[in-house]
Amino acid sequence: MRDVAVIGVGKTSFGAFPDRDLRSLAVEAGEKALKNGHVAPSQIESFYLGNFAGPSFVGQNHLAPYVSTALGIQGVPATRIEAACASSGSAFFHGWSEVASGVNDIVMVAGVEKMTSQTTARVSQILAEAGDCSGEMRAGNTFASLFAMIARRHMHDFGTKKEHLSAVAVKNHANGALNPDAHMRKVITLEQALNAKPIAEPLNLYDCSLISDGAAAAILVPLERAREFTDKPVRVLGIAQASDYVALDQKDDITTFPAVRRAGEKAYRMAGVSPKDIQFAELHDCFTIAEIIATEDLGFVARGEGGPYAFEGRTARTGERPVNTSGGLKAKGHPVGATGVGQIFDLVQQIRCEAGGRQIPRHSLGLAQNLGGSGATCVVTILGAA
Amino acid sequence: MRDVAVIGVGKTSFGAFPDRDLRSLAVEAGEKALKNGHVAPSQIESFYLGNFAGPSFVGQNHLAPYVSTALGIQGVPATRIEAACASSGSAFFHGWSEVASGVNDIVMVAGVEKMTSQTTARVSQILAEAGDCSGEMRAGNTFASLFAMIARRHMHDFGTKKEHLSAVAVKNHANGALNPDAHMRKVITLEQALNAKPIAEPLNLYDCSLISDGAAAAILVPLERAREFTDKPVRVLGIAQASDYVALDQKDDITTFPAVRRAGEKAYRMAGVSPKDIQFAELHDCFTIAEIIATEDLGFVARGEGGPYAFEGRTARTGERPVNTSGGLKAKGHPVGATGVGQIFDLVQQIRCEAGGRQIPRHSLGLAQNLGGSGATCVVTILGAA
Repeated sequence: MRDVAVIGVGKTSFGAFPDRDLRSLAVEAGEKALKNGHVAPSQIESFYLGNFAGPSFVGQNHLAPYVSTALGIQGVPATRIEAACASSGSAFFHGWSEVASGVNDIVMVAGVEKMTSQTTARVSQILAEAGDCSGEMRAGNTFASLFAMIARRHMHDFGTKKEHLSAVAVKNHANGALNPDAHMRKVITLEQALNAKPIAEPLNLYDCSLISDGAAAAILVPLERAREFTDKPVRVLGIAQASDYVALDQKDDITTFPAVRRAGEKAYRMAGVSPKDIQFAELHDCFTIAEIIATEDLGFVARGEGGPYAFEGRTARTGERPVNTSGGLKAKGHPVGATGVGQIFDLVQQIRCEAGGRQIPRHSLGLAQNLGGSGATCVVTILGAA
Repeated sequence: MRDVAVIGVGKTSFGAFPDRDLRSLAVEAGEKALKNGHVAPSQIESFYLGNFAGPSFVGQNHLAPYVSTALGIQGVPATRIEAACASSGSAFFHGWSEVASGVNDIVMVAGVEKMTSQTTARVSQILAEAGDCSGEMRAGNTFASLFAMIARRHMHDFGTKKEHLSAVAVKNHANGALNPDAHMRKVITLEQALNAKPIAEPLNLYDCSLISDGAAAAILVPLERAREFTDKPVRVLGIAQASDYVALDQKDDITTFPAVRRAGEKAYRMAGVSPKDIQFAELHDCFTIAEIIATEDLGFVARGEGGPYAFEGRTARTGERPVNTSGGLKAKGHPVGATGVGQIFDLVQQIRCEAGGRQIPRHSLGLAQNLGGSGATCVVTILGAA
């Protein structure tokens, strides 16, 4: 396999954009990535699009050529990948694989979702289709209630406290407030986080990520060609996709995600690094408990220690290993299909020292973890300075 | 790149199965492929699922791990690909690429769609989402009306006659009648085909493919390992995916599909063969005119000659180059996401001399062409005896 580099990235702001359609968002991100990577559309040899539920959200399917042709990318394979909230993480994995294996040299991977044109109730229903609709969801669950069960069990087994969950929200809101492209730029206090409106006990409003519109894109080439395009290439050191049961009730233990552990282990092995080497990370905080469990499953701390780890500020922007300096899904926003490549964008910004007010001092080795559903898909990517 | 072989295939019957859900169909096809290829689920290193619109048809998304875990395939990447009616053709292309490039050795590719639980009107609407919903479809089109325009223009430019279209229907129904797994096993006469209920002039009922439930699966390995699994491996000689505009109104000429031409040329080049070498084919006859144009775009005949080519019986089961001996989408059925791998199944059956009453004498080199929308995605695959 060849070494692979990210040479260009682009992203729209994440937010609620009633005047924008899905395609215009994807095209904005794609054009920014082309410009950033000094690549012409005609040079792109393969195009991947991560999108979770365009047909349900905006009534448009067959989305890959729909977007690629609007970007001026003609003729080459244009492939949409759907893997719930890990759709564009998976698309990035397949784009990487294509370059690493020598199938193609210049590959664009984009992700997009346009969610805010639907009511919140309808959005919940569409999201629920990433769970098992013949079982857990038919019984009346939403993802909030599934992650509430996960949180309760984590509290029961490990003594995790509501304060620990709220600390994640407070941290990610603080980071998001510094991100000009974040959906919600609002600092909150621990008290506010603790006392917000309940959604599914023990999760309240501030434990849940946002419903957003947005898109992100990245361009991959063989590392050996990277400097033809940019003097700031970022290297893909390790990457893996793994899967598990869709239904929570099929899992032996709901306080850990085997797909995250598996993808993490494979990515670490490929990169030749261990969890302690990771300097910062973008983790999939669809709910605050998910970030806590991710820090455990990825080996940043031992099982059950994720709550105190966050509460003690060790994952803060000024902590030993900053997590979600972008604001995370919690404050940056979570346009589902865009989130995976959005995380790649955020890692690249930090590694290139372009993160503005959020820039952290140790930024040469970062990890992104993109989760689908309640753990049925996970993609872990480790990026480093080239 | 390594040579790749298909070592196992499986397929459900195509039809209307009110008592079956999407997952049970996909699992049936997958288990048949595992048995046919003498492979255990634990040996599968990567899983691809082609599915067009599971969320819209049956309210279930995140379909790849939903199906793979039910097959006992655990942990490995499980990836859903959506490319309209070419979803599983594209999945097959990506599965092939993964084996050819050495990323993985044993890859399963499945395709599934469960359509008949919706009303015909709702099915039309869901299918229309593979077109441009901000343009052509918003103006009131369905795919029947788009292909009717294509047929009219082909008639205008080349003198193609309604009899030519009907001849395709008569042929494919005759073939489907011999296929025990076909959705419609009904021989029709040219007169019946000509005089059927109009759908979108000049297309009538018999010019349109069926709305079906069904699934198909195939297992790919490096050619050099094929005989570990089967004594009847089938070789992937050439394969390519190409794309084009989604909206018909963006195309210069609607009587030819550039994506088909491009994918065909690349696949021929890879296989080192020319159109005249192809002994038989499964072509994407979503409408009769589509089969006629495919025979032109793939170089079996010159532009404009596809109508007479079919009418003269040259693509009949007993003709010089049989097309759609399975019955095609027209009679075998068209469970959208299953169609691409379903064509692979049909080629493999002929090449292995297992096609029963439909078996043709010259069966060592076959081509499958899987089209998405009105030509925005195309995958062409050339298979041969190993």
